[in-house]
Amino acid sequence: MAIVVPFGSQPEPSIERLVSLVSADMERVNAMILSRTGSDVLMIPEVANHLISSGGKRLRPMLTLATAALTGYSGTGHIKLAASVEFMHTATLLHDDVVDESELRRGKATARMVWGNEASVLVGDFLLGQAFKMMVEVESLRCLGILSAAAAVIAEGEVMQLAAAKKLDTTEDAYLAVIRGKTAELFAAACEVGPVLASRSAAEQAACRSFGMNLGIAFQLVDDGLDYGGSRAALGKNVGDDFREGKITLPVILAFRRGNGDEREFWRRALEAGETSDKELDHAAELLVKHRALEDTIERARHYGAIAKDALALFPHSEAKQALLQVVDFCVARAH
Amino acid sequence: MAIVVPFGSQPEPSIERLVSLVSADMERVNAMILSRTGSDVLMIPEVANHLISSGGKRLRPMLTLATAALTGYSGTGHIKLAASVEFMHTATLLHDDVVDESELRRGKATARMVWGNEASVLVGDFLLGQAFKMMVEVESLRCLGILSAAAAVIAEGEVMQLAAAKKLDTTEDAYLAVIRGKTAELFAAACEVGPVLASRSAAEQAACRSFGMNLGIAFQLVDDGLDYGGSRAALGKNVGDDFREGKITLPVILAFRRGNGDEREFWRRALEAGETSDKELDHAAELLVKHRALEDTIERARHYGAIAKDALALFPHSEAKQALLQVVDFCVARAH
Repeated sequence: MAIVVPFGSQPEPSIERLVSLVSADMERVNAMILSRTGSDVLMIPEVANHLISSGGKRLRPMLTLATAALTGYSGTGHIKLAASVEFMHTATLLHDDVVDESELRRGKATARMVWGNEASVLVGDFLLGQAFKMMVEVESLRCLGILSAAAAVIAEGEVMQLAAAKKLDTTEDAYLAVIRGKTAELFAAACEVGPVLASRSAAEQAACRSFGMNLGIAFQLVDDGLDYGGSRAALGKNVGDDFREGKITLPVILAFRRGNGDEREFWRRALEAGETSDKELDHAAELLVKHRALEDTIERARHYGAIAKDALALFPHSEAKQALLQVVDFCVARAH
Repeated sequence: MAIVVPFGSQPEPSIERLVSLVSADMERVNAMILSRTGSDVLMIPEVANHLISSGGKRLRPMLTLATAALTGYSGTGHIKLAASVEFMHTATLLHDDVVDESELRRGKATARMVWGNEASVLVGDFLLGQAFKMMVEVESLRCLGILSAAAAVIAEGEVMQLAAAKKLDTTEDAYLAVIRGKTAELFAAACEVGPVLASRSAAEQAACRSFGMNLGIAFQLVDDGLDYGGSRAALGKNVGDDFREGKITLPVILAFRRGNGDEREFWRRALEAGETSDKELDHAAELLVKHRALEDTIERARHYGAIAKDALALFPHSEAKQALLQVVDFCVARAH
């Protein structure tokens, strides 16, 4: 007879295996990040470190380090590439906060609230330049190609999101194209450069890329769910920010399509015409519950998480592989 | 007995020799630019081409083509590098207009006035990503190093300018550091990659870089003079934009330092406290005349132009060399 373990006593999914796997390398990445934000122009390290030291998980550079470990890379290029990936991410966040007019990020005032939009735009540009300098130093044209292509695709995804804003006729496919670009592409690139540095087979490079891409999609789906279902403490930003900005995310797409005429009218008034007070946010949350829109958003995330895990099937058992698989569970479980 | 030629009958300096030298290559660069602004995200080519097709001289990519010709490069890499240089420049302009809240550029409404700050920031990021993709395709790590370093230095110069804004105690040296970064560095990089592609000696690479750097400084000095002394038609922007934004440029630095107590008080009220109506702009222009601040700004430009010309002295006579020397005269003569 099997012993029934109540759900509550299962270990909470975490990324601790990943953190411990890459901890030595991550110290070198952090030192690299610190040294490359330095500039005689004092405003640059000030603005950059405000965000960089704000307690982000540094998930993306850890993925680069872990896929390098998974594929047996023994050089040092992964350190600079991991730092580049984090700089690209940080530059995107600085620009995003300007684009979204955000006031809060990771529980702190955004850089643009402290130093202004100008500084956020320009320091983002500086970090992007520094990222490319570090990549060039690694001297791998393949890795340069992967990461520079990612930079263009990320911006493309962001513009796509801007064009889709306040448009409730956005399809689930169009939404997926946005999050593939703005989020998943950098996860994919971060995971692909590891096996490329290690000169592994095209199949293994593609497997790591696929792992990153699908993990990134799952990650963003959960993030978009949390914007309606999370707490400010867990989010590090205000619940309902997407709602107030008129962002069309999957929970909304599902509730809108499944809703009746009155409900669709409500969504139009809220997201297209901008009636987004707390009263409307409460009503939006009710409609999401009524149509199981958050559950199904997480269900979709679970689907992409499963693809990510299967992508790694061709690698034999290893601590690096287990750590990467655990990251998928963690990203999906953030939803609870 | 020498014939005295009156100044007025001398041919007006132009860049026609440069234009005709690189015209065949430039057609390929223009086709490359057009194809690389393409995207399924329609807003991207729209925003990018608004600025790219607005009649800029494309001086920077022409410099890349001309220095490649000067140093006998016979491959095709200079086409993509020239297009990359123009994309880097365009990305900078899109971001600058957001930072400066500019309404007019090359005589047209700025992209941010038509599509908003968000689109300007993101399409700038897209063009920067596309620039790096093209550079990587050329497969020269040296050229990648030069251009990625330039990207970081340009942003550094812009942040420096932001930090110096409205600060009348800015020294001429600090001002020079700003324009070296924000303008001259890209001229230098644009000129350096030609001889690098052609695998010429370090001395020739350094000569081309020095030519570009000093030409860029002269170019920006004249630009800063024109902001007070030019016409709206010649500038493609409003006269006095720098004044209204509180930008501390060399004409102001000279007039402030040479001025008496009352005059310094005026500059403080105008540029630090923001009293910049047309009346103040007229008075500023009077003070610039009184202290010969515009003449001496152009005199400084002439000095850097002379250094640029001497930098090319080690190259034998050629049509490419003559075309590059003429560019210096053109840049300085724009002041008249």
